Amino acid sequence: MKYRIEKDTMGEVQVPADKYWGAQTERSRNNFKIGPAASMPLEVVYGFAYLKKAAAYTNEELGVLATEKRDLIAQVCDEILDGKHDDQFPLVIWQTGSGTQSNMNVNEVIANRAHEIAGKVIGEGDKTIQPNDDVNKSQSSNDTFPTGMHIAAYKKVVEVTIPGVEQLRNTLDKKAKDFANVVKIGRTHLMDATPLTLGQEFSGYVAQLDFGLKALKSSLSHLSQLALGGTAVGTGLNTPKGYDVLVAKYIAEFTNLPFVTAENKFEALAAHDAMVETHGALKQLAVSLNKIANDIRMMASGPRSGIGEIIIPANEPGSSIMPGKVNPTQAEAITMVCAQVMGNDVAVTVGGTQGHYELNVFKPMMAANVLQSAQLIGDACVSFDVNCAAGIEPNQTRITELLNNSLMLVTALNTKIGYYKAAEIANTAHANGTTLKEEAIRLGYVTAEEYDEWVKPEDMTGSLK
Amino acid sequence: MKYRIEKDTMGEVQVPADKYWGAQTERSRNNFKIGPAASMPLEVVYGFAYLKKAAAYTNEELGVLATEKRDLIAQVCDEILDGKHDDQFPLVIWQTGSGTQSNMNVNEVIANRAHEIAGKVIGEGDKTIQPNDDVNKSQSSNDTFPTGMHIAAYKKVVEVTIPGVEQLRNTLDKKAKDFANVVKIGRTHLMDATPLTLGQEFSGYVAQLDFGLKALKSSLSHLSQLALGGTAVGTGLNTPKGYDVLVAKYIAEFTNLPFVTAENKFEALAAHDAMVETHGALKQLAVSLNKIANDIRMMASGPRSGIGEIIIPANEPGSSIMPGKVNPTQAEAITMVCAQVMGNDVAVTVGGTQGHYELNVFKPMMAANVLQSAQLIGDACVSFDVNCAAGIEPNQTRITELLNNSLMLVTALNTKIGYYKAAEIANTAHANGTTLKEEAIRLGYVTAEEYDEWVKPEDMTGSLK
Amino acid sequence: MKYRIEKDTMGEVQVPADKYWGAQTERSRNNFKIGPAASMPLEVVYGFAYLKKAAAYTNEELGVLATEKRDLIAQVCDEILDGKHDDQFPLVIWQTGSGTQSNMNVNEVIANRAHEIAGKVIGEGDKTIQPNDDVNKSQSSNDTFPTGMHIAAYKKVVEVTIPGVEQLRNTLDKKAKDFANVVKIGRTHLMDATPLTLGQEFSGYVAQLDFGLKALKSSLSHLSQLALGGTAVGTGLNTPKGYDVLVAKYIAEFTNLPFVTAENKFEALAAHDAMVETHGALKQLAVSLNKIANDIRMMASGPRSGIGEIIIPANEPGSSIMPGKVNPTQAEAITMVCAQVMGNDVAVTVGGTQGHYELNVFKPMMAANVLQSAQLIGDACVSFDVNCAAGIEPNQTRITELLNNSLMLVTALNTKIGYYKAAEIANTAHANGTTLKEEAIRLGYVTAEEYDEWVKPEDMTGSLK
Amino acid sequence: MKYRIEKDTMGEVQVPADKYWGAQTERSRNNFKIGPAASMPLEVVYGFAYLKKAAAYTNEELGVLATEKRDLIAQVCDEILDGKHDDQFPLVIWQTGSGTQSNMNVNEVIANRAHEIAGKVIGEGDKTIQPNDDVNKSQSSNDTFPTGMHIAAYKKVVEVTIPGVEQLRNTLDKKAKDFANVVKIGRTHLMDATPLTLGQEFSGYVAQLDFGLKALKSSLSHLSQLALGGTAVGTGLNTPKGYDVLVAKYIAEFTNLPFVTAENKFEALAAHDAMVETHGALKQLAVSLNKIANDIRMMASGPRSGIGEIIIPANEPGSSIMPGKVNPTQAEAITMVCAQVMGNDVAVTVGGTQGHYELNVFKPMMAANVLQSAQLIGDACVSFDVNCAAGIEPNQTRITELLNNSLMLVTALNTKIGYYKAAEIANTAHANGTTLKEEAIRLGYVTAEEYDEWVKPEDMTGSLK
Repeated sequence: MKYRIEKDTMGEVQVPADKYWGAQTERSRNNFKIGPAASMPLEVVYGFAYLKKAAAYTNEELGVLATEKRDLIAQVCDEILDGKHDDQFPLVIWQTGSGTQSNMNVNEVIANRAHEIAGKVIGEGDKTIQPNDDVNKSQSSNDTFPTGMHIAAYKKVVEVTIPGVEQLRNTLDKKAKDFANVVKIGRTHLMDATPLTLGQEFSGYVAQLDFGLKALKSSLSHLSQLALGGTAVGTGLNTPKGYDVLVAKYIAEFTNLPFVTAENKFEALAAHDAMVETHGALKQLAVSLNKIANDIRMMASGPRSGIGEIIIPANEPGSSIMPGKVNPTQAEAITMVCAQVMGNDVAVTVGGTQGHYELNVFKPMMAANVLQSAQLIGDACVSFDVNCAAGIEPNQTRITELLNNSLMLVTALNTKIGYYKAAEIANTAHANGTTLKEEAIRLGYVTAEEYDEWVKPEDMTGSLK
Repeated sequence: MKYRIEKDTMGEVQVPADKYWGAQTERSRNNFKIGPAASMPLEVVYGFAYLKKAAAYTNEELGVLATEKRDLIAQVCDEILDGKHDDQFPLVIWQTGSGTQSNMNVNEVIANRAHEIAGKVIGEGDKTIQPNDDVNKSQSSNDTFPTGMHIAAYKKVVEVTIPGVEQLRNTLDKKAKDFANVVKIGRTHLMDATPLTLGQEFSGYVAQLDFGLKALKSSLSHLSQLALGGTAVGTGLNTPKGYDVLVAKYIAEFTNLPFVTAENKFEALAAHDAMVETHGALKQLAVSLNKIANDIRMMASGPRSGIGEIIIPANEPGSSIMPGKVNPTQAEAITMVCAQVMGNDVAVTVGGTQGHYELNVFKPMMAANVLQSAQLIGDACVSFDVNCAAGIEPNQTRITELLNNSLMLVTALNTKIGYYKAAEIANTAHANGTTLKEEAIRLGYVTAEEYDEWVKPEDMTGSLK
Repeated sequence: MKYRIEKDTMGEVQVPADKYWGAQTERSRNNFKIGPAASMPLEVVYGFAYLKKAAAYTNEELGVLATEKRDLIAQVCDEILDGKHDDQFPLVIWQTGSGTQSNMNVNEVIANRAHEIAGKVIGEGDKTIQPNDDVNKSQSSNDTFPTGMHIAAYKKVVEVTIPGVEQLRNTLDKKAKDFANVVKIGRTHLMDATPLTLGQEFSGYVAQLDFGLKALKSSLSHLSQLALGGTAVGTGLNTPKGYDVLVAKYIAEFTNLPFVTAENKFEALAAHDAMVETHGALKQLAVSLNKIANDIRMMASGPRSGIGEIIIPANEPGSSIMPGKVNPTQAEAITMVCAQVMGNDVAVTVGGTQGHYELNVFKPMMAANVLQSAQLIGDACVSFDVNCAAGIEPNQTRITELLNNSLMLVTALNTKIGYYKAAEIANTAHANGTTLKEEAIRLGYVTAEEYDEWVKPEDMTGSLK
Repeated sequence: MKYRIEKDTMGEVQVPADKYWGAQTERSRNNFKIGPAASMPLEVVYGFAYLKKAAAYTNEELGVLATEKRDLIAQVCDEILDGKHDDQFPLVIWQTGSGTQSNMNVNEVIANRAHEIAGKVIGEGDKTIQPNDDVNKSQSSNDTFPTGMHIAAYKKVVEVTIPGVEQLRNTLDKKAKDFANVVKIGRTHLMDATPLTLGQEFSGYVAQLDFGLKALKSSLSHLSQLALGGTAVGTGLNTPKGYDVLVAKYIAEFTNLPFVTAENKFEALAAHDAMVETHGALKQLAVSLNKIANDIRMMASGPRSGIGEIIIPANEPGSSIMPGKVNPTQAEAITMVCAQVMGNDVAVTVGGTQGHYELNVFKPMMAANVLQSAQLIGDACVSFDVNCAAGIEPNQTRITELLNNSLMLVTALNTKIGYYKAAEIANTAHANGTTLKEEAIRLGYVTAEEYDEWVKPEDMTGSLK
């Protein structure tokens, strides 16, 4: 492999000749061989691209950066956001906890690529754009990384998580309406209980996701606050007056999202409770999705020896020998995602507790976990929706069979013949393995006509109220 | 011990003669000997007392309960709320997951005590008030337990947690203002960094708690939704028309809190995401408090060989031999609380995922954990406030010493003599173990007067902007 | 209330006249009003009683404590272990993280009670036994608390957890043998699969608990190592030569458990990985128990509309109206315990990470969680065993019905008529809702006699191998 | 892109022409677009390669597979293990929870590649090797996936985790010996305490890692048990007699690791407590490493305003302006890893609880988390060792300064002049900000010579005993 020499304050470093990165990126590559390479999420890099461009515009507007430099920086940032340099960010999550090295990675790539755009040869002559003095102007790793992290997390939540959850929510809502008249047995403690409609069951799932979406959206205002402008310790040392508000305005403009400068920069560097809060809402959604997916796979279980009240799509061979064995694979995928999100929540929580003095140094780990959870929930909801929920149909025959067999319907006779006679009917049917109607008639408490008139499961669901 | 005979549908049970509870409570006592007795939180029992009274008023108003019965029930509920029957609730958390047995415990105690108030002898004659037919009228364990759990959790949060956190927040806010001019060294990565004021550091803590309080309060609207009226599976079977809205209105009136009936009763029985959401906010506060308390104990460390920038109150002998050894015991207590809350969050989360069909049967465990976390955070904040935060004072001598020794102040010379000369000064001072001023003068880059004029830490904090 | 005056190095304190505790206990009571009083587990106090007695014997034997003092101390320790002073330990978990105040609580109670035994009046005259100089001789909070914590945890595990789990394990093993010939349908992905015996299913549960017990027992050797002798920072300052080994020998003798002195006292004070390790094994058991209890409640679900393959004991009325509604309440109690243990594991883990320098100051929280988990698992296993597992019976009718309906049995024909014809039989039966036998004959691939001879579920279980 | 047609029992599927995989892999690719592609760890694929080869050998030896087929299968498995087909496994973790689709991916790749080796054109003619009938012979996804998962996890632990931890452990042990005579102040509660040696501190770290390694190794016997031979539900249906023992023997031979067949196949399919157990030990190591790394960064803090007792290597510029600002970046990387492992432990635990009946369907998620944690711990230990621990040096000047300033040394005078006079000396020195020696002489309790003779920190460490 060919190399060129790059320098930083500690001296010279050999860097692969075909890469834009510089000395500090290369040092980090060598010093942190932990897990697979390039694990730092690209979304964070893109967050940096937005903020570096915004900082260049702000610095130019406030008179501390030349217009040509602004334009060069902005051009490279746009290239990064177009995905043209994805292979230029080789660093891992498990580096310095401030993410300094990823900040420098971005600074170095922008500087060298700008040099190239300016018609120079990388590694020759003075850099057209200095990574520290120009690209990083009015910035510190300590305020850029949390800013990039917030941009990345906010975008992921509004572009992937929320649309994904809403798509599933809307399908479940449609099913709740479609199934409004499908009366079925209820189950509490996993045991037979009084009836309800399948639509009512699904309406509960919709309510869960609505609450979860509300909680997630509610967490966004904290996440919209950006640390940029705090520089090294939150005081804003070395930033021009008005910088923090203006740079947030530019970020909002470039991302088309409602970012604002953080009310308190000390909090924004030293604590990442906004990430804890957003992940808490993601975890709440995981809790809801786990319940929903678990119910659906239990209701779809069978085909002969399970519950079998609903039919889910067959997307792949369950087995080469078992026809009708439609495994609830989408439910399995999404519940595995839920377990992962529950685990990630602990990682984010632990990271959140460990800020020391002016800086929390668990930033990359927290960013990676929030991004993973947000992506997985969004993707899994879409996958579950398209490949499972949208195709759910009631197994009407089975539902009716289980409903009519139920001893719970005797409750409807309470107000006609009294609790004790009703209980006698139910007890006898249970003991004899017979139906309520058989025993009710045999015991002489009701006629067949009375039974049919009085024991109407659909009247017990409240759904007609 | 003397016993009397109580009956339920399974037959007769011997019950201690001096207790109000009945057969089902006694069965539960015998069947669930798990952990210490009476672990079911009294707050849940009080939540039941509110709802039983409200149900009685609603049932009477809707014409399904006699006025005298309503009054008897209400009278016992008031006695329970006055703490007169705390020893009548012997059951444990680790019972049926619906909390049915605690619902029956309350029903039985109300019925027997009402019988006594009515001038009868317990265990003799027909019960004046029937535990199932009267006290539990228009109710099921499945909607009463989550209702009592929400009442208990909501009250705990607004009566203990929020006031406790706000008390500490206000003290920290006062300190932030008091310390606005105490310039000190900043620290990032635990390493010396540019200066800020002690007030700025504390303002970050205040911002953390403000965000946490906002998140916690934001979770209350979900918690204010009551399941009552859903009865067994959410359909409201066996409730009079209008019952759910009216009973929530009565609960709101009796508790003076903004409770409303749940929008979706199926969700309210089968999922407890409201508890998950509220505990998520409690966990966020734990994350914040851990950071704050940890910073404070590190800044107070010493007295001779630590950081020693602040002085915290000496509340107890640290050691019989070590004068000045003031252990940060309040910080230790609150960080242990934070660890517990982080653990409880996983317990609540796991419980939340496991609802099956129409009922989540992890209710008592979830209730106990939310209540414990809410209590501990509130109490720990008050304890930390009164016994530590309120008495924090800066150790001005030590702060000044550490500030003036810092090599970081050289940053102020960058704009006067250039980055490279400034770096040379700092490097030399580091190597020689001297001060910046000494080396700056010795190297001939500045005069003593210039140094004193240019290197002013207070100008680097941005606090005078 | 009447008070007497007690003193410590910070001055005088009013203490309730009827209590043995002294100034430092009273200060802690006032300074740590966090959660309910006296939450520090009594098991830790008893652990202290063992070690104070052992220290007295060791100190006497090594010539640094008078024999009369030893005997007085030992006498009070025995009284404590007899439960005679349970109301003398009012402190909470949420105190100093070293547990110093509980150490002093024990020291003070022993000293004042010894004074009384010696015929003196508490609060009058010089103390016969000094709490610090005599009771605490050759000790520090820093080595006594972890010692008491290890004694308490070890005893709880061997006296409650292991016997409880073994009792359940033995019942399940008996069931596995009893059910060795009950052939039933298997289920994977919750879907019908090839058959196995109910005994085989239960043998898997036994294997799980055997592995869990092995892991738990394996953790005990770490827990058997005692910090005592390390004193303040692990160096053993102020202990006589040979003290650490001898005091561990006495503790082993008094508890009749194989305690030894810790190999490395610095680790024993500054880290509590032994507690982390033991709780990890408790968590593994919780994982196993959750699986087992969940399976059992699913298999017992019904009575008409669930799986219904096994019958579990009816211990309490499930509902006043639903005969046969036997809720799986023991499974619910134990799965709630499992969720709690999973949460506690995070609390213990977080506490374990946070040792600083020479001392971990999350000791009381870690002790409380390990003790709670150990107690709950042991108790819940006994409760689940006695009230559920021991009474489990197969519902043979239902098992046979579900087995014979299964399309999975077609697998047995593969080797006779080939995979494609077998699949055709199964597919047709699934589509028509008929039996395999009906379709096999109708399609002309086998005769009724051949079918009966070839399709024998019991031959598919491997149980006869 | 060019495609060819592949078939399974559900019909035809278009597959990229340049890939070996078949219809079922392609279906999974399309049905599970969750997170980044190819997230299923390659280690699991390699685990499959070992077991497929072993199964082929076993099947051949037991007479159910032709020798030529065995050799073709084995040849492709060897190619996979050589890393020649890494791009042939595009599936994600978030698929069916049994991992069936990854099993089929391996089967399909082996079959098509074998066809090619046999000189045929993929997609033309009958397959030389059938993916289900030949490659998957005597197997099911249900026993192969857990087998592959155990092989992968076991190898990762013994090849990456244990060597990595041992490397760091040995360096710390060397440092403990090197620093055996570096007497320094101890700290408890973060506060100054009696002295110890730096070597003693490091010996505690070594002890922690020794306990962790022991726990990890102890978990391996459970992990060495392989499910293979259980097939669909654990009964071993469709396996030749002796298959399970023999196939484990071949796996042991091919991997050179002590794998054995699982004692109970029902447990091995339905529960993954072995993974829970191993991850529990990884989590324990994370707890230890977090403590160690945190101590080291606190002791290295400064350079002027922190503790500064040790010097760690400067691996990268901490800041362009702050000489001597050596950020403890390796400590940050490893503590982030620890937080991740703590989170992963919850994910693994939750997955472990959720087995249903005969199959746990959280397999891929559990495998991925165990493998990630094992890799990260191993890598982070090596990185921390090479780039930090190996270069740690005491800052003797600072250590001596802090030690001599300490008021704690007064403890040494207790036995000479009594506790009260000693306390008076310390109190006065604390109040006046003077040294113990100054006050001891000024108060007239000792001479300078006596002080120097009696107050020797090194005698207080017990290190010379």
